[in-house]
Amino acid sequence: MSDIKKVVLAYSGGLDTSVIVRWLQDNYKCEVVTFTADIGQGEEVEPARAKARAMGVQEIYIDDLREEFVRDFVFPMFRANTVYEGEYLLGTSIARPLIAKRLIEIANETGADAISHGATGKGNDQVRFELGAYALKPGIKVIAPWREWDLGSRESLMAYCEARDIPVDYSKSKKKSPYSMDANLLHISYEGGILEDPWTEAEEDMWRWSVSPETAPDTPTYIELDYEHGDIVAIDGERLSPATVLETLNKVGGANGIGRLDLVENRYVGMKSRGCYETPGGTIMLKAHRAIESLTLDREVAHLKDELMPRYAEIIYNGYWWSPERVMLQTAIDQTQASVNGKVRLKLYKGNVILAGRQSADSLFDESIATFEDDAGAYDQKDAEGFIKLNALRMRIAANKGRKLF
Amino acid sequence: MSDIKKVVLAYSGGLDTSVIVRWLQDNYKCEVVTFTADIGQGEEVEPARAKARAMGVQEIYIDDLREEFVRDFVFPMFRANTVYEGEYLLGTSIARPLIAKRLIEIANETGADAISHGATGKGNDQVRFELGAYALKPGIKVIAPWREWDLGSRESLMAYCEARDIPVDYSKSKKKSPYSMDANLLHISYEGGILEDPWTEAEEDMWRWSVSPETAPDTPTYIELDYEHGDIVAIDGERLSPATVLETLNKVGGANGIGRLDLVENRYVGMKSRGCYETPGGTIMLKAHRAIESLTLDREVAHLKDELMPRYAEIIYNGYWWSPERVMLQTAIDQTQASVNGKVRLKLYKGNVILAGRQSADSLFDESIATFEDDAGAYDQKDAEGFIKLNALRMRIAANKGRKLF
Amino acid sequence: MSDIKKVVLAYSGGLDTSVIVRWLQDNYKCEVVTFTADIGQGEEVEPARAKARAMGVQEIYIDDLREEFVRDFVFPMFRANTVYEGEYLLGTSIARPLIAKRLIEIANETGADAISHGATGKGNDQVRFELGAYALKPGIKVIAPWREWDLGSRESLMAYCEARDIPVDYSKSKKKSPYSMDANLLHISYEGGILEDPWTEAEEDMWRWSVSPETAPDTPTYIELDYEHGDIVAIDGERLSPATVLETLNKVGGANGIGRLDLVENRYVGMKSRGCYETPGGTIMLKAHRAIESLTLDREVAHLKDELMPRYAEIIYNGYWWSPERVMLQTAIDQTQASVNGKVRLKLYKGNVILAGRQSADSLFDESIATFEDDAGAYDQKDAEGFIKLNALRMRIAANKGRKLF
Amino acid sequence: MSDIKKVVLAYSGGLDTSVIVRWLQDNYKCEVVTFTADIGQGEEVEPARAKARAMGVQEIYIDDLREEFVRDFVFPMFRANTVYEGEYLLGTSIARPLIAKRLIEIANETGADAISHGATGKGNDQVRFELGAYALKPGIKVIAPWREWDLGSRESLMAYCEARDIPVDYSKSKKKSPYSMDANLLHISYEGGILEDPWTEAEEDMWRWSVSPETAPDTPTYIELDYEHGDIVAIDGERLSPATVLETLNKVGGANGIGRLDLVENRYVGMKSRGCYETPGGTIMLKAHRAIESLTLDREVAHLKDELMPRYAEIIYNGYWWSPERVMLQTAIDQTQASVNGKVRLKLYKGNVILAGRQSADSLFDESIATFEDDAGAYDQKDAEGFIKLNALRMRIAANKGRKLF
Repeated sequence: MSDIKKVVLAYSGGLDTSVIVRWLQDNYKCEVVTFTADIGQGEEVEPARAKARAMGVQEIYIDDLREEFVRDFVFPMFRANTVYEGEYLLGTSIARPLIAKRLIEIANETGADAISHGATGKGNDQVRFELGAYALKPGIKVIAPWREWDLGSRESLMAYCEARDIPVDYSKSKKKSPYSMDANLLHISYEGGILEDPWTEAEEDMWRWSVSPETAPDTPTYIELDYEHGDIVAIDGERLSPATVLETLNKVGGANGIGRLDLVENRYVGMKSRGCYETPGGTIMLKAHRAIESLTLDREVAHLKDELMPRYAEIIYNGYWWSPERVMLQTAIDQTQASVNGKVRLKLYKGNVILAGRQSADSLFDESIATFEDDAGAYDQKDAEGFIKLNALRMRIAANKGRKLF
Repeated sequence: MSDIKKVVLAYSGGLDTSVIVRWLQDNYKCEVVTFTADIGQGEEVEPARAKARAMGVQEIYIDDLREEFVRDFVFPMFRANTVYEGEYLLGTSIARPLIAKRLIEIANETGADAISHGATGKGNDQVRFELGAYALKPGIKVIAPWREWDLGSRESLMAYCEARDIPVDYSKSKKKSPYSMDANLLHISYEGGILEDPWTEAEEDMWRWSVSPETAPDTPTYIELDYEHGDIVAIDGERLSPATVLETLNKVGGANGIGRLDLVENRYVGMKSRGCYETPGGTIMLKAHRAIESLTLDREVAHLKDELMPRYAEIIYNGYWWSPERVMLQTAIDQTQASVNGKVRLKLYKGNVILAGRQSADSLFDESIATFEDDAGAYDQKDAEGFIKLNALRMRIAANKGRKLF
Repeated sequence: MSDIKKVVLAYSGGLDTSVIVRWLQDNYKCEVVTFTADIGQGEEVEPARAKARAMGVQEIYIDDLREEFVRDFVFPMFRANTVYEGEYLLGTSIARPLIAKRLIEIANETGADAISHGATGKGNDQVRFELGAYALKPGIKVIAPWREWDLGSRESLMAYCEARDIPVDYSKSKKKSPYSMDANLLHISYEGGILEDPWTEAEEDMWRWSVSPETAPDTPTYIELDYEHGDIVAIDGERLSPATVLETLNKVGGANGIGRLDLVENRYVGMKSRGCYETPGGTIMLKAHRAIESLTLDREVAHLKDELMPRYAEIIYNGYWWSPERVMLQTAIDQTQASVNGKVRLKLYKGNVILAGRQSADSLFDESIATFEDDAGAYDQKDAEGFIKLNALRMRIAANKGRKLF
Repeated sequence: MSDIKKVVLAYSGGLDTSVIVRWLQDNYKCEVVTFTADIGQGEEVEPARAKARAMGVQEIYIDDLREEFVRDFVFPMFRANTVYEGEYLLGTSIARPLIAKRLIEIANETGADAISHGATGKGNDQVRFELGAYALKPGIKVIAPWREWDLGSRESLMAYCEARDIPVDYSKSKKKSPYSMDANLLHISYEGGILEDPWTEAEEDMWRWSVSPETAPDTPTYIELDYEHGDIVAIDGERLSPATVLETLNKVGGANGIGRLDLVENRYVGMKSRGCYETPGGTIMLKAHRAIESLTLDREVAHLKDELMPRYAEIIYNGYWWSPERVMLQTAIDQTQASVNGKVRLKLYKGNVILAGRQSADSLFDESIATFEDDAGAYDQKDAEGFIKLNALRMRIAANKGRKLF
């Protein structure tokens, strides 16, 4: 194995990455730096310190990245109304570039020449981590143990730990779940197990962040969201930080049965996979952002955004957050959000996010023109005739020349 | 007024178009042919015959177009997962080209030299009717009374009727509602009245086709939809005609509180307008079609469809169904649907359309590759390294040359 | 005619707009402000002053807008490699928004309530003038005499002048040409006359700005262009202002027979029209800009630009320079140009613009990787196998499932 | 090395692929089937038979694929006006899928379990060959010797031959050229050598298919091309097969100095590379096809084609001819070509392809409307006012609400 001296590992403290710490030490004979981030996955990150120390790790990074995550990644993505393949809110995808960035920053700080992660060779996450790392530090080396070793099962990992006295808290390991899960402030995902058959409905007790619509309260919850430049800055009049906005919406959304999704998606590595997702806050944010844009964005700008969105979503899904094409599109998207200010009122009820109102000092809705009542000459209906006639001209000429449309 | 001899009028039998019959007779001194279509608006069309006859109309067309509407317009549109501005299912837009086509067919049959309709000069429908008419019969003349006359209010229309003994059943006129409404088998829409303030929530008693999520049944309804070439051909195992499919879905959807929408949309004529829509069956169809496609469509084809969809939606919304660009896109969309076959299982519950399963003999989901378990060599994880490295190459070169991404 | 008090007219000093001055005075009984701009059309603008004064015009604006035209309109457009319908360099289109902007600025300065122009009701220019004017000053009134009067021919215009003693220099009027022409620093265009038959080749003596390839010099001319942020800042080492860059390129291009074009194009108002264009400098700039981008732009950014370009071109052609969607796209385009720096060497010879070299300190071309010689491990050819295999995976799965591609 | 029994090799008869025959026999201990195709590269293919036989090859395929190449690959591609990165006519890219298809057909006929080719691990061609092969026969194995062996230079290849008595005609080997070349009926390409410096101009004696503009005839050549459904079917009135069309255009184009190109392009594998190309016939075809489309295609269809073209070009360049997304786009493109019929007249002169006329029975050019002369009421200029006013409405509302555009 190549001559790596120090590697920064994205370390969760769980079974897999604990094995990786030791495996790197044993096989690459290199120093391991661990990096554990709180991105809102809902688990304590501090315990990772003791575990890492117990394995002889000298440099241990434990960061609370929740505000950066929402402010610099989640919010910019939602400005584009980003949805992958019509439904997926990219909860996993959007967390990876932040991890990649921190891995590289820590590699720079610690003088490490490599990074490592616990993503498998079949998934999208390896791509997202590594594309980001290469884009930010082109000479970095990447060690992806799952592509190298032959520890293919949970049993072999546990055997590896026992043989080497690696401290793992088996009782808390999320791998006990029959599902492969991933969580951050935007969502929690489930894959594997019985989900591998797309005909099988997910079991109710799989879901962790939301109650079912059936068990959600029988009375709706109303909330009001304040937007500035496309981002939510306050809920029900209370100004909140980005992470607090998302935490709050997750709580109220989950309590109302909002944000469950069951998908077959197309991975960048070429296969289809089945996944279930809970994105309570994100589901609310998408609906609300479209609502405030409906009032404040120009039609052609809104349509251009809609046409560019699938590409932007694909770029993020495929792991190209840290790419010049994402930066180019982001520049365009952000430019449009200057006027996306105002207030959205929503009714949350048993899985439904129902729009209850929107208003804005930057509204382009002109009641005096749109009205069915007398508009006092604001709009001259006779203009429509010329509008239609010239728009029809090319088709009339074609029909005159004998062209058929069916 | 110009020398028109015979005009075919899209005639509902209601107040507005009854006034138009007489107004055309009086002002254009021309023969009026009435055309009344059942496109699933939920009102009897046969009574229009007696009313037209009472006004001296000689040639009266009353057609049941429900099957043609769903088969040749609604279904093709849903093959593209068509949504305008992220939310609107184009219920009004998609009915207009069929009306335009029949108006022209009838003009051809009756030797009429003009058509007429009751759409106002502020809306999209005038554009949709007239673009279609001009595209199909370039020499046709169009009379749009709302752009010509000065009968601007319901009161002046009623006075016009009384002064001329025009038979109108005031008690049944849908104009009694405070809303301007439009209905067909795909949806019912509401505009005007208190909706003109986008901050005001719609009143519960406005909605006509669906119960509220609150009053919907407390137990879910499961349905299974069979797809062939992108279209639904059976529900719960029973083979149904296109119109019956949609009627059935409207019924079960409406009963479960599904398909309400509250929007501010951008009209083609340049203004924003507020509308509320009920599209129970369409809401179910969109979810289900995406689900069956997720299993059976190639990734790149699916993404291309997603990128083209906003344009396709805009084309339909703006009234260009009968245009060569719509035909071009339809050709591409339809080509992709050959493999879109299989079964989708849905759970309907209090406003939610929840995916419960999908299966297909044409599935591209390969469990043997996607599995988290041992895949017996179906996928070589080591391939991922080269995949990532070459995908990262351009960004590594750029970073090596000093390019920054933030 | 409506109660207009003062109108700003885009005044060339020629026959048509001289008639318009008087026609406005006579028919609208309003004060006329004339605005004459030098945008490089190659005619003196100062004589317009005396003519306007002779007709009693009090407020006369004569501006040299050449630098602003190239710096703020032509250069930004060329950053996108803008071409309409595959060939047209938008020479007329790009000048109109500047005129519209100045008309509105002058209307604001002089307190005018209307603007007027000499464009006909069949062309694109009326749209470009008026969309710009409305976008910049929504309450402005627009008088388009060609859509109002019945002076349909040159003869009736001349009769109008004679009857009213309007001073027109008939001998210099460009209308003597059988063609309708338009010129600015970017191009000169020809329409009408024998060009109305698309099968007829343009006559050699029509062309004014370039020699024919046949009569161009027998020895090539080499030039070197320096780029900064996507714009040319120097020619053959000499730093030049934007307008001087374009003037210089027009001269050397025209002398080498470069930039003639013969087109049938699709007008925004719905008809096809035949036009001939000479764009010597622009033709050189397009070739050179692509060359410097080929070295300095990331692949995906370049491809995104190429995909967005036709839309951007259409926006400009149709008259939407002053629109939020153009601003949005411009923001994205400009963002990409930070690295578009370097030098391009061209060989100009008898109509050909031949690339002779490009270099850049911001080059992303990496000889050490691209070389056919030994690359010392800079690129591992074995990576290609995994790259190909994963890119092929979706298609292999599909083929395994029996999908056919032909 | 894996247990391959029989491999089909794309065999040119030159040095590289001759080495590969023996290398496969020696290293894989498998039977080699050679496949040599005439796709218009301008070299005899029959001599490959004796060479293959001399190395013990039993199954030898030698095919003339010129007609299939032009009819099923080149012509469909030109229907889209396909250009990669603004300039490259995809001459190499478009030949690869045909070779891939024949390799697989021969593998099926001979029961081979693998294919092999002589493309390097740095280029696009390996991707094009292998993606095609995998898409058409998902279980096929691929041997890419350049990614496996250590014969990195021409010297080591020659040493390999001499050591094994491999018959190579050194004097004719194109590798003697300092350039890496590739040719087929559409083009010839040059890479490597002094071209690796993008600032260096190509030497005149590199070019093989065209004279320089300087040495081209002093008098122009006129040709007329007849189009049917987007394809050229006759030149100067003589009906010709697809391959003969292209051969004829190559001859006349090359004789007039047409079709040279000097590019830096972005390879799919992630690097930029410099290449020179001669595409005389293709350059003529692109110009002519745009001309006939300008007369016969609807505006919106033409614009949609222009927007989709860069993606279509990228798909072909990257090697995805045999993909469902290419088939989807091709279906749309081909649908538009039904009306692309007519005649184009061109003037060829010293590197220039100058349009001299176009005509079509399917022309949508309407002289009676487009004319500057009296149009007898075919077009009502007053319609333009309403057209402009409604198109401006959204911008006027925005400006009224205080929005700024700069």
